[in-house]
Amino acid sequence: METVSETASFGGVQGVYRHRSSACACDMTFAVFLPEEARSGPVPVLWFLSGLTCTHENAMTKAGAQAAAAEAGIALIFPDTSPRGEDVPNDDDFAMGQGAGFYVDATQGPWSEHFKMWSYVADELPELVAQHFPLDMERQAITGHSMGGHGALTLAMGLPGRFRSVSAFAPMANTLDSDWGVPQLTAYLGADEAARRRHDASVLVEERGFDGPMLIDQGTEDQFLDKLKPEALAAAIARRRQPATFRMQKGYDHSYFFVSSFIDDHVAMHAEALWA
Amino acid sequence: METVSETASFGGVQGVYRHRSSACACDMTFAVFLPEEARSGPVPVLWFLSGLTCTHENAMTKAGAQAAAAEAGIALIFPDTSPRGEDVPNDDDFAMGQGAGFYVDATQGPWSEHFKMWSYVADELPELVAQHFPLDMERQAITGHSMGGHGALTLAMGLPGRFRSVSAFAPMANTLDSDWGVPQLTAYLGADEAARRRHDASVLVEERGFDGPMLIDQGTEDQFLDKLKPEALAAAIARRRQPATFRMQKGYDHSYFFVSSFIDDHVAMHAEALWA
Repeated sequence: METVSETASFGGVQGVYRHRSSACACDMTFAVFLPEEARSGPVPVLWFLSGLTCTHENAMTKAGAQAAAAEAGIALIFPDTSPRGEDVPNDDDFAMGQGAGFYVDATQGPWSEHFKMWSYVADELPELVAQHFPLDMERQAITGHSMGGHGALTLAMGLPGRFRSVSAFAPMANTLDSDWGVPQLTAYLGADEAARRRHDASVLVEERGFDGPMLIDQGTEDQFLDKLKPEALAAAIARRRQPATFRMQKGYDHSYFFVSSFIDDHVAMHAEALWA
Repeated sequence: METVSETASFGGVQGVYRHRSSACACDMTFAVFLPEEARSGPVPVLWFLSGLTCTHENAMTKAGAQAAAAEAGIALIFPDTSPRGEDVPNDDDFAMGQGAGFYVDATQGPWSEHFKMWSYVADELPELVAQHFPLDMERQAITGHSMGGHGALTLAMGLPGRFRSVSAFAPMANTLDSDWGVPQLTAYLGADEAARRRHDASVLVEERGFDGPMLIDQGTEDQFLDKLKPEALAAAIARRRQPATFRMQKGYDHSYFFVSSFIDDHVAMHAEALWA
């Protein structure tokens, strides 16, 4: 693992690192924020998964999560959203290929050689960061934005017991029934719906649920509401009797101005679960 | 004036606007954050001037100033750092030309036709925003980063009575004695030192001072310390007996991770002066 940069931030350190990923068969870059408390011992971890077109950098610089994480004494990890490189397949559509890994393990060509973002975020990267940073891996939580909200929810419910709390900003909530979901997951996972059902947040809420606090924020002026399908997730939460807070935030759109406006609430919810 | 975008942020609105600047003889883009209180009446104003290579966008997305401004009920204005466009002179050096206006009115060719950032920030843009937004122009304060810190300090001292408080993050503090200052201001203003003395923050502190609170933050690990010359400003503050807080922040570099770590302190200081 190579250090790209380390920068002081809110009394802690915002670092960027690069390593060779065996899951994705390419070099991967990720960011870690460590609060001041990490100097004297392991700290809890909040994962932030990002959306379409993003790298590790967008949320690191625009979400404004470091202030609250420093206050709460928890680490933040910002993975990239897909494998990258000249040898990695891509697509002209920004919702497919590089920058659009959808947090699944692709089984279909030409994607299956590199697009293993589920394994990367669920297995490889946790092992790597646990080895290199003072993290208490018994205390993990996860959040994300848009495609990363989909990732946060599907990982949280797909790995029971791993995460103490889950939240999402404007998540892709119903990939089985959306232009952001059907074409991409069919390309990555094939036409059989069974494989894709495990990557639909609304299906998972209704069929499995999540054992811990859940917070969903969605802006009412989000320009992608027709693709995100928050109504499916809200209905699933209600049908499941899933303990959750689902908020439609008046006037907010899909941008990081929305994320940063509510990030403190999310970090506070996770911090309470992580320190419990 | 044309609206480029308006986005909900912390209960208020983060807008981006474009207009034809007569001072700079080109189209100029700027950003305004209005807190929720602006819906019911005029609010005080905090100007944020940015550094080399920046547009209106960098601080708007990375400084994290909106949270504290919303809390304090004050507006933020983020001007661009220079005239721009194909017809506007430029230079291969990132510290000269487009993105590097240095907040002066150039008198030397080829710069003098467009590079009038002093007049733009001191006169034209205030008139424009006062006309279009609910701003209390009797309550203004100013801050900035790097070249923008130089701008904030020189404007605050060059326009006595205009700003109630001034602050700066890692300002270019002594342009008469720096590679960030001498070449650029000589090109813009000519070889005569008299014109350039009015654009040196340390000279101004020592010769004029500022009637109001002043806060300076500077990181100890700033990669540009040799160009910024904070020691000149600190010495001038001491010699002048200028009321000021000058902080060397251990471990911080020149990035927006430094700015965002301390922006709340700056906004709080300005808010106190603005609401007094």
